[in-house]
Amino acid sequence: MSQPDARHAPLAQIPPGIACARDYELLCEHFIPAPTLAYLAGGAGHDRTRDANLAAFDDWTIWPRLLRDVTHGHTRLALAGAELSHPFLLAPVAFQKLVHPGAETETARAAAALGACLVASTLSSAPLEDIATANADGRRWFQLYFQPERAATQALARRAEAAGYEALVVTLDAAIRLPSLSALRAGFVMPADCAAGNLQTLAASAEAFPAAPPGQSRIFQGAMRAAPGWADLDWLRSETRLPVWVKGVLHPDDAADCRARGIAGVIVSNHGGRALDGAPASLAALPGVRAAVGADYPLLFDGGIRSGGDAFKALALGANAVLVGRLQVWALSVAGALGVAHVLKLLREELEACMAQAGCATLADIGPHCLAAAHEPLAAVRAIPPHPCGPAD
Amino acid sequence: MSQPDARHAPLAQIPPGIACARDYELLCEHFIPAPTLAYLAGGAGHDRTRDANLAAFDDWTIWPRLLRDVTHGHTRLALAGAELSHPFLLAPVAFQKLVHPGAETETARAAAALGACLVASTLSSAPLEDIATANADGRRWFQLYFQPERAATQALARRAEAAGYEALVVTLDAAIRLPSLSALRAGFVMPADCAAGNLQTLAASAEAFPAAPPGQSRIFQGAMRAAPGWADLDWLRSETRLPVWVKGVLHPDDAADCRARGIAGVIVSNHGGRALDGAPASLAALPGVRAAVGADYPLLFDGGIRSGGDAFKALALGANAVLVGRLQVWALSVAGALGVAHVLKLLREELEACMAQAGCATLADIGPHCLAAAHEPLAAVRAIPPHPCGPAD
Amino acid sequence: MSQPDARHAPLAQIPPGIACARDYELLCEHFIPAPTLAYLAGGAGHDRTRDANLAAFDDWTIWPRLLRDVTHGHTRLALAGAELSHPFLLAPVAFQKLVHPGAETETARAAAALGACLVASTLSSAPLEDIATANADGRRWFQLYFQPERAATQALARRAEAAGYEALVVTLDAAIRLPSLSALRAGFVMPADCAAGNLQTLAASAEAFPAAPPGQSRIFQGAMRAAPGWADLDWLRSETRLPVWVKGVLHPDDAADCRARGIAGVIVSNHGGRALDGAPASLAALPGVRAAVGADYPLLFDGGIRSGGDAFKALALGANAVLVGRLQVWALSVAGALGVAHVLKLLREELEACMAQAGCATLADIGPHCLAAAHEPLAAVRAIPPHPCGPAD
Amino acid sequence: MSQPDARHAPLAQIPPGIACARDYELLCEHFIPAPTLAYLAGGAGHDRTRDANLAAFDDWTIWPRLLRDVTHGHTRLALAGAELSHPFLLAPVAFQKLVHPGAETETARAAAALGACLVASTLSSAPLEDIATANADGRRWFQLYFQPERAATQALARRAEAAGYEALVVTLDAAIRLPSLSALRAGFVMPADCAAGNLQTLAASAEAFPAAPPGQSRIFQGAMRAAPGWADLDWLRSETRLPVWVKGVLHPDDAADCRARGIAGVIVSNHGGRALDGAPASLAALPGVRAAVGADYPLLFDGGIRSGGDAFKALALGANAVLVGRLQVWALSVAGALGVAHVLKLLREELEACMAQAGCATLADIGPHCLAAAHEPLAAVRAIPPHPCGPAD
Repeated sequence: MSQPDARHAPLAQIPPGIACARDYELLCEHFIPAPTLAYLAGGAGHDRTRDANLAAFDDWTIWPRLLRDVTHGHTRLALAGAELSHPFLLAPVAFQKLVHPGAETETARAAAALGACLVASTLSSAPLEDIATANADGRRWFQLYFQPERAATQALARRAEAAGYEALVVTLDAAIRLPSLSALRAGFVMPADCAAGNLQTLAASAEAFPAAPPGQSRIFQGAMRAAPGWADLDWLRSETRLPVWVKGVLHPDDAADCRARGIAGVIVSNHGGRALDGAPASLAALPGVRAAVGADYPLLFDGGIRSGGDAFKALALGANAVLVGRLQVWALSVAGALGVAHVLKLLREELEACMAQAGCATLADIGPHCLAAAHEPLAAVRAIPPHPCGPAD
Repeated sequence: MSQPDARHAPLAQIPPGIACARDYELLCEHFIPAPTLAYLAGGAGHDRTRDANLAAFDDWTIWPRLLRDVTHGHTRLALAGAELSHPFLLAPVAFQKLVHPGAETETARAAAALGACLVASTLSSAPLEDIATANADGRRWFQLYFQPERAATQALARRAEAAGYEALVVTLDAAIRLPSLSALRAGFVMPADCAAGNLQTLAASAEAFPAAPPGQSRIFQGAMRAAPGWADLDWLRSETRLPVWVKGVLHPDDAADCRARGIAGVIVSNHGGRALDGAPASLAALPGVRAAVGADYPLLFDGGIRSGGDAFKALALGANAVLVGRLQVWALSVAGALGVAHVLKLLREELEACMAQAGCATLADIGPHCLAAAHEPLAAVRAIPPHPCGPAD
Repeated sequence: MSQPDARHAPLAQIPPGIACARDYELLCEHFIPAPTLAYLAGGAGHDRTRDANLAAFDDWTIWPRLLRDVTHGHTRLALAGAELSHPFLLAPVAFQKLVHPGAETETARAAAALGACLVASTLSSAPLEDIATANADGRRWFQLYFQPERAATQALARRAEAAGYEALVVTLDAAIRLPSLSALRAGFVMPADCAAGNLQTLAASAEAFPAAPPGQSRIFQGAMRAAPGWADLDWLRSETRLPVWVKGVLHPDDAADCRARGIAGVIVSNHGGRALDGAPASLAALPGVRAAVGADYPLLFDGGIRSGGDAFKALALGANAVLVGRLQVWALSVAGALGVAHVLKLLREELEACMAQAGCATLADIGPHCLAAAHEPLAAVRAIPPHPCGPAD
Repeated sequence: MSQPDARHAPLAQIPPGIACARDYELLCEHFIPAPTLAYLAGGAGHDRTRDANLAAFDDWTIWPRLLRDVTHGHTRLALAGAELSHPFLLAPVAFQKLVHPGAETETARAAAALGACLVASTLSSAPLEDIATANADGRRWFQLYFQPERAATQALARRAEAAGYEALVVTLDAAIRLPSLSALRAGFVMPADCAAGNLQTLAASAEAFPAAPPGQSRIFQGAMRAAPGWADLDWLRSETRLPVWVKGVLHPDDAADCRARGIAGVIVSNHGGRALDGAPASLAALPGVRAAVGADYPLLFDGGIRSGGDAFKALALGANAVLVGRLQVWALSVAGALGVAHVLKLLREELEACMAQAGCATLADIGPHCLAAAHEPLAAVRAIPPHPCGPAD
């Protein structure tokens, strides 16, 4: 049994020896108690989709290109009508007090410092107003879970508007969440003080099924009775002056529907493998979504980003920008705001290095032509002209 | 060497900490002596088909869908002219006294309680009449092995009719069964008191080859001389008022022949990998069988179901319902009828959760369009429109 | 370091507990000193082709078929104008005294007893005449390596004719053999008394490169100067009254050339992975060879047969019969002639069981239609009709 | 922690027991301190491209061919207007004093002795003039990194011309190099005395990013500002009488551009996986490059050659010759010039053996038709004629 108090407290400076963003994944196990780490790292069920998210990046390699002038290069992009200096957003991650006493306020300060758009979670440990204060100079969106009562949902939206959040991101893939087996087996229990930021009651029950009428299905007539529909989304759009995004899209038809219904943009995501164990990898779903929504629709990617090279692949396969979830939390656990800022800086620099090597000066230069399928030996060889090797005599 | 008596006796209640149906697979090794477990878990030969059964589910992922109203959802289906509340049947599993003194009567009670159609085995430890009594309020079919003499086969059919069984399921893939190497190596020996339910003589000889005339093949002129042919099947149909199903179908042509000859329905199965080591995975064979028999022919699936998500995939690939074999026995070993009822409840709820996430309110909504091939990175990317990423300036 | 004398001497009876032919592979390590086992089991170089030989069988699964009448079934075949009771030949394996003092005379007795055609090796420990004596009632062919001098080759052919061998099998893939790294590392040295059966000088030098003129290539102007050409093969055919086979064919064009030049038949083989490390798996090459030579040309398969199911797959992919090499030696090491006879019996029965389950009464019923590719999930699903699952209401 | 002084000093003779070129990979860990070995063996980042380089060879198998007369065989080739006795070049490898006090002068003597063209590195431990002296009778090219000032680049080119180097090889894939994680973790630090051969200042800073103007990107406005462009390459060609090659090409369009711009030839390479972690395997990129430049353009291969068989595959897929990097250094560490000469001899002999077995007498006989894709079971079987197996009666 791991002993929580044997872990290090978060550091006040960036530790030496970190060579790449992913190194925080190795470091964090010295800072996060094992049951908590199991909860945060775990996916739904047997972790199949979580693992597939990472493996999907290995299906692609990146073409290096030579002698391209990229001295005018940059990573700026226009997103939702404003400019970002780089395409890394901080994904909504709940209950950040689990790994750092400053919780989301640390993350929010890092986001502001590094120019990363912050997507704050409904399930934050800190109230959304405190997060906004810490992020005063930054860009921030609010991730919204529909509440059982519309009034509660509306109240959240109002608070987000008032606190300077610039968009609402409605997460739609979590109406039903089966528990993480690894968290269960590790004995994780949500501490009472971690989950009371924005809501009165919430706690660990977020992951249990609600009750259903006697003799009926806990799923269909229980959990899903509380799940939102298109009418709720239309209502929300009419109730707020903020643009409404949808997070949790995988199927191309759902993405096309979102566009048709006036949604501002979609985030391809499977909730980090924490929703449906057996869903496609985010990266595998991404190209189909881009094809469905067309070239000009705002499209973000979430699911398995561990390096700037991963971000490059997601951009090449159709994303305008990417969200970073678990790496954010690992860095937070190691060194608070400094850690999160550091991981963002590393990711950006890794992306720049990748772009430079691929001959891409701007994000607009990145596309499917920058990638090669990793496992297609036969395709190339069919084009070889006969007798390429000339003898000496 | 494992010590049988060091195992736990079956519990009188469901143990805590079970998070999913498959957890019974982990638990059961504390309740079943190792040689018996090797016998029950083992496949024929080197377990290739048994393992392929499970691996085949990883060839597919499930599309989550958003914002679908499934509050009217249910898992009811019409099968063989009657209604079932869910598509999980209990597969015929022989010799259940090996894991629980109550044997099949426990299973039968659980089936009745959970509304699962029970398929009782010819090789049950308990007589089929006792099973029927325990299952009085339930739905039950009888799995029939052709006996060396037609009279004996007829007697079994008569007893099944008299005891309220509603269909005969003839298993046709077990004329020759090579022993399970793992069972042999574990030193498994069938106890005398496990195998005397319906037949006078049977015991472990079920798995040995019968004798052949001197100088002739133990296979062709021995075992296969006793194997049934189409004429026997036609005879059986004429002798019984019950509908006759065939279990053990993999090849599409065999399935089409069954339909053409008046068989009520077929069960795609490779006997859990216990018949021909090297046969295709059940799930790999399923789509071809559905294509061969057409959309309206009753078709069940057996082979590797370990979760509601597995069932969802089998339904999507053409099955009307699925049979659960090994999980049934693992749950029986842990907690008797309660365990079997619990595993059925978990499976159903896992299926419902999967349906809800996939936007399917009823079984009729499930189809191949709900699945994505897990390993096709190139197919999707070819559809991406050019330059999806727009720069900031 | 393994201690040779700690091994068991060959048994005088078949040991208990053997459930399948391949079990001799597990048993033999108790009977063969580790360096010798490394030499016999090893392939050339890094064992890539040796391992690929086995892995190739997993590319295919076997369709079970139902209700076929195979009570007239048998495994007889006509090969080279005579009848064999089953399609298992004993492959030429050199230096059998390494594992049993009786060496090839044991093998020869087993072959005669089980009706297996024996292919005796030029490099046998026992003289070919002794082998013939032990095999008096059997069918036997002689595997011929071209000798540096035609007179020596002719002498071997004459002796084979005189001793009742019915065909000459010329092995053509061993002009250059790189040493087995595992044998080298295990410290294997050929004992002087193992390799003097038919030739005056031979010994371990069989695997070293011959000398070349100063400044020239040990390969091109050394080893390959001694390698036979078409003229040598034509000469051999003109010098002997026996049919001449070629062993070591993989490329379809070489097979077609053999047929065109009057060779009686070919054996698809890569020398058990002991010739060119990096050559295709035998089973992968087989279908192309069958397609090149046509349906009526005698074609044998060698390379990785470990079970009757493996033989079934080779027959389905184009072979008329198969050769068994390493299993033969493992069984010889365990129980001499009895062991070899036993492994032949097991293989035949495994093949019969496989045939019966696949609905094949005779070898002529076996073909590519009996196999399914193991890794093609998408092909089958495209044929599913829409909405196969019907709801209850 | 490994202890550098516990390693062996380089031997004065070839150690016994080396069976193939790759054995030097196993041996060298007894001669190179662990941190240095990590630095030399490591790739960029997580070693994905480095590992893919090796794995790509397993995508192909080599067809053995029978009865071909190759007694006139040789490995000579014409390259860049002169004759080489074999197609193995010594790749430019920096800082060879890390593994042997004689550094590149040892390598240069071996190259001369074995007739291997030496490609000396800008970053050699020994001055290029010393290398030339040691290689007086040999063929040598000079690998050139563009220096921050054209004058410095010009000076290097002049010195190379004066010292008898016959070509300049400009490496273009190393403008940005992320550090090797394994080297960092192993604690490798470049010794001061290893890296002062040709340049005044250099040292380990070769792998760090240069500075950028405040607020700008270390990549785009830092490292890439110093990176050469087409104009620099044109300038270099105009400044030197030597032919100019480009090393580091993977994309077919870059190769075609090189040809169009008057580059003498290109070297397909990903810097041994040390440049962009995630780039395609060299062997995977090779066929596309050959197809782009046509059959008659000089094309070399670099990336993962560990055996003569690997070289055969690269030649078959379009290369005229291959470069050997890491094996060169491993052999240097073990036995200095003798080791490097030995590994070249082994590689050549392994290639000859492979050619002889594949029926290729000269390099011109090697082509894509000599290879088979390793994983295509279905392609071949579709050609099988029906019923290949004839029964006996």
